Amino acid sequence: MEEIGFLGLGIMGKAMSMNLLRHGFKVTVWNRTLSRCDDLVKHGATIGETPAAVIKKCKYTIAMLSDPAAALSVVFDQHGVLEQICSGKGYIDMSTVDAETSSKISEAIAAKGGHFLEAPVSGSKKPAEDGQLVILAAGEKALYEAALPAFDVLGKKSFFLGHVGNGAKMKLVVNMIMGSMMNAFSEGLMLADKSGLNPQTLLDVLDLGAIANPMFKMKGPSMIQSSYPPAFPLKHQQKDMRLALALGDENSVPMPVAAAANEAFKKARSMGLGDLDFSAVHETVKSSKGSS
Amino acid sequence: MEEIGFLGLGIMGKAMSMNLLRHGFKVTVWNRTLSRCDDLVKHGATIGETPAAVIKKCKYTIAMLSDPAAALSVVFDQHGVLEQICSGKGYIDMSTVDAETSSKISEAIAAKGGHFLEAPVSGSKKPAEDGQLVILAAGEKALYEAALPAFDVLGKKSFFLGHVGNGAKMKLVVNMIMGSMMNAFSEGLMLADKSGLNPQTLLDVLDLGAIANPMFKMKGPSMIQSSYPPAFPLKHQQKDMRLALALGDENSVPMPVAAAANEAFKKARSMGLGDLDFSAVHETVKSSKGSS
Amino acid sequence: MEEIGFLGLGIMGKAMSMNLLRHGFKVTVWNRTLSRCDDLVKHGATIGETPAAVIKKCKYTIAMLSDPAAALSVVFDQHGVLEQICSGKGYIDMSTVDAETSSKISEAIAAKGGHFLEAPVSGSKKPAEDGQLVILAAGEKALYEAALPAFDVLGKKSFFLGHVGNGAKMKLVVNMIMGSMMNAFSEGLMLADKSGLNPQTLLDVLDLGAIANPMFKMKGPSMIQSSYPPAFPLKHQQKDMRLALALGDENSVPMPVAAAANEAFKKARSMGLGDLDFSAVHETVKSSKGSS
Amino acid sequence: MEEIGFLGLGIMGKAMSMNLLRHGFKVTVWNRTLSRCDDLVKHGATIGETPAAVIKKCKYTIAMLSDPAAALSVVFDQHGVLEQICSGKGYIDMSTVDAETSSKISEAIAAKGGHFLEAPVSGSKKPAEDGQLVILAAGEKALYEAALPAFDVLGKKSFFLGHVGNGAKMKLVVNMIMGSMMNAFSEGLMLADKSGLNPQTLLDVLDLGAIANPMFKMKGPSMIQSSYPPAFPLKHQQKDMRLALALGDENSVPMPVAAAANEAFKKARSMGLGDLDFSAVHETVKSSKGSS
Repeated sequence: MEEIGFLGLGIMGKAMSMNLLRHGFKVTVWNRTLSRCDDLVKHGATIGETPAAVIKKCKYTIAMLSDPAAALSVVFDQHGVLEQICSGKGYIDMSTVDAETSSKISEAIAAKGGHFLEAPVSGSKKPAEDGQLVILAAGEKALYEAALPAFDVLGKKSFFLGHVGNGAKMKLVVNMIMGSMMNAFSEGLMLADKSGLNPQTLLDVLDLGAIANPMFKMKGPSMIQSSYPPAFPLKHQQKDMRLALALGDENSVPMPVAAAANEAFKKARSMGLGDLDFSAVHETVKSSKGSS
Repeated sequence: MEEIGFLGLGIMGKAMSMNLLRHGFKVTVWNRTLSRCDDLVKHGATIGETPAAVIKKCKYTIAMLSDPAAALSVVFDQHGVLEQICSGKGYIDMSTVDAETSSKISEAIAAKGGHFLEAPVSGSKKPAEDGQLVILAAGEKALYEAALPAFDVLGKKSFFLGHVGNGAKMKLVVNMIMGSMMNAFSEGLMLADKSGLNPQTLLDVLDLGAIANPMFKMKGPSMIQSSYPPAFPLKHQQKDMRLALALGDENSVPMPVAAAANEAFKKARSMGLGDLDFSAVHETVKSSKGSS
Repeated sequence: MEEIGFLGLGIMGKAMSMNLLRHGFKVTVWNRTLSRCDDLVKHGATIGETPAAVIKKCKYTIAMLSDPAAALSVVFDQHGVLEQICSGKGYIDMSTVDAETSSKISEAIAAKGGHFLEAPVSGSKKPAEDGQLVILAAGEKALYEAALPAFDVLGKKSFFLGHVGNGAKMKLVVNMIMGSMMNAFSEGLMLADKSGLNPQTLLDVLDLGAIANPMFKMKGPSMIQSSYPPAFPLKHQQKDMRLALALGDENSVPMPVAAAANEAFKKARSMGLGDLDFSAVHETVKSSKGSS
Repeated sequence: MEEIGFLGLGIMGKAMSMNLLRHGFKVTVWNRTLSRCDDLVKHGATIGETPAAVIKKCKYTIAMLSDPAAALSVVFDQHGVLEQICSGKGYIDMSTVDAETSSKISEAIAAKGGHFLEAPVSGSKKPAEDGQLVILAAGEKALYEAALPAFDVLGKKSFFLGHVGNGAKMKLVVNMIMGSMMNAFSEGLMLADKSGLNPQTLLDVLDLGAIANPMFKMKGPSMIQSSYPPAFPLKHQQKDMRLALALGDENSVPMPVAAAANEAFKKARSMGLGDLDFSAVHETVKSSKGSS
């Protein structure tokens, strides 16, 4: 992978392409707002005028876009990826999109003879900067192998999960477990508080035991303060719970705990908390007035 | 704390008293089956003939008994703790008992002028041997402070949680979170499996992310194999869920996720799995036959 | 059953003893506040000065008291039932009490050689006045048979359910189903409303179908108005859900829907709604603000 | 409404068109298998060769088809409804279809200048024969009013619910409540049984109280026998729960009891019970072996 294309320079994309440059990759970047490219050019990147121009120039192109609409637009619009993708060229979409969007892109690329990999990541800004993402790749195995040198720079670990769609599914499963855990944690914090125990002490005890994990450590102190600055918005967490439950429905997997957690997130949405962090589900277990 | 008494030499008690000896404490031990004392005598322990004899000899006595019945018997039976406890002597019960048992013992000790501390632990055999327990103490602060040199040897961390009962409550809160997490994990493993993902890969992905924790790592591989050797029996986990929910009921804390998890553990009990490890709740999300 | 004693002339007891008089029974009444007896005396009742005096005079005595404390007091206090109960006399407690209270009374009566029946009822003021109660009797079969002429006047139907405790259990099972149904109904009303359907039309549709029942018909219109005048207080309904779940726990019966309903009632309690009608659980499914 | 068309002579359609004939309507019928028309011809019906032929002949045509595929085929295929529908003609689809199917048909009819009403019914074979259906109509008000004489014959009550889609939504809300009630009932039957009460007596007690309803009366006895002959298949009930929960999700309505009930139906599906009656969810609360 000498020359690599990179589409999308948001918070994540910028950190990721900077990492590639730092590790000696030649990178051609494109962003809808071109001025976002300036910093990268200072570090040695070349600019591509359009997605099509980047694809034409590079054997492999990575995309990191904000949502399914942007992911589709970059591929299907005028001067988009489809105009230049062809046999021998690879397209790696690392955006988080739904299975349907991923399939649509995959099929269009394949119809042109190109190669496709979906590769959503686990981890946000900090891990992106530190090259500590976890990469959940699925699609063409050969392209995965060709992309490994780049993945090794971007993440601490990458997985190849089989056919297109499996990357998105794996993310759903992980986020479903995370959402249920968040509710269990929230209920525990409130139970401690109302039972006369110090919630901060509960955090300390948890952190020393078999269920100690970074999320409790990171979110606990602000939850005790009823502060929920949005890292992962509650409405997105609830959407992932819903999609995970739908996946379970298709496959006849009873998921009573996830279903209860999903309803708590829905309750939080009905309280107007959808744009706060998903830890704001903590508000649903609070008393409104004196109990009876 | 020069001379310290120790009542109960089961798996936990033996490892703990051995640790005290190794760190230079003089220890007088008693066990219902006296032959269990032999190994400790080899390492320098003295034998007390009865609980009363141990109390008489030592300023502080620790008890580590298997269940509430044993904890009560050692205190209230003939030649029991009550016969010798008096002003200036401290009794530290590190057994896991319910709040009612703890109160009964606490009141009886206080009525004789003695000092009492409940100090249940988090952690099982291995942490006991390694002096890596987490100690949840509650009762008389002065006794807690006097016991700190011993606690520093037995555990990696001890907490003083206020009045008697709070130690037991803290354990319930932690175990309630743990039980809900186990269900979330179990549902996720099954969802991965039925959706065509490799459950082992899910374990690997989880272990790299924000919800990585020792329990998933420890229990996951055997759950995938449908193997549930009892470390913490399911019926005990379910009992703790029930008690935590009762505590929430008293304090008007809605706990919908814990309630759903409790019902899954009850379902597992109704399937005859109560004596297996609590991870056997995994059986409740499996298909019995082809779905429809 | 010529002469019958009657202890307790609250709303229920007054209506019931009046019914007995109207149907030709001779009745000796007692009430803590004796002035409550006046109306009944006008209709032919005799006054007993104390519970003991009533028992002494009558072969059979019915009690209808407000709560377990009153039920115990009437039996165990000075001049109480126990002072005169003996072989050949029957005591029929129609109060709604917990299993423990019922057992305590049952055993004390039996120890004196007396005969005992617990006979809680389903139905409130109106059915009591109309002789349309449903009577859930348990205890001594012979006493049940002797009481049948009275039960035929008081209720539209009586059941003999076996040994003492079964009457209380049957009430719990019925109330548990009722509490879950109330939640299902509440969720449906809100879903209709938020989906652009007229909740009143939903009531009309429900009333014509396979799940039409008096409770939906009676409670629906006021729930739509957010009006919850207490007929059956929410905190009592929640207590019955809790006790029914505990009964299920003892017998390894998974009850996930009842558990979810119980948590909704707990949420309502945490919102300060415990003294309103149990239909006030409807408040838990409302939006607080604009959703997101 | 002198002349009325009728498409689809399955169990429901045959009973309904027979009712129309009996009440003096002139009816022109069509069925894919034309021999199904014979009985109706004996009672005075005329045969239409194709859906298009029926539409051409009649001012109003009712359709009662088995599923969405059949409902679409009759409208869009060759010789279908669309070929003859036009201004002044009305099409009333009484099949149970999803909102999307209903919209598709509605739009196609409107594009040709025709008038459309969706009118799914509540009630199965027996109510259809007895003219006791409940009709949930939505679409064009004028067409609803024109159809009232027919609806009065077919049902005991009809509702006009506003724009197309509302008929389907109302059915979902009703079925969601029904599914949750079925679970509450099932849990109660099992709780009675395991607690030493006679489940048949529970049925008798329920039938006398505030939650008495036809469904408990009809399904209870066979559930006690573990017999679930399919009247409304479990997989269809679960589908309706899923769709009702999705509707709640769209509108931010928390529905924890419906969610728990849905998971129980999913568990039943995973046990291979999807084709049995929806009361087969009762199997999910049974013990597999001795409990512990």
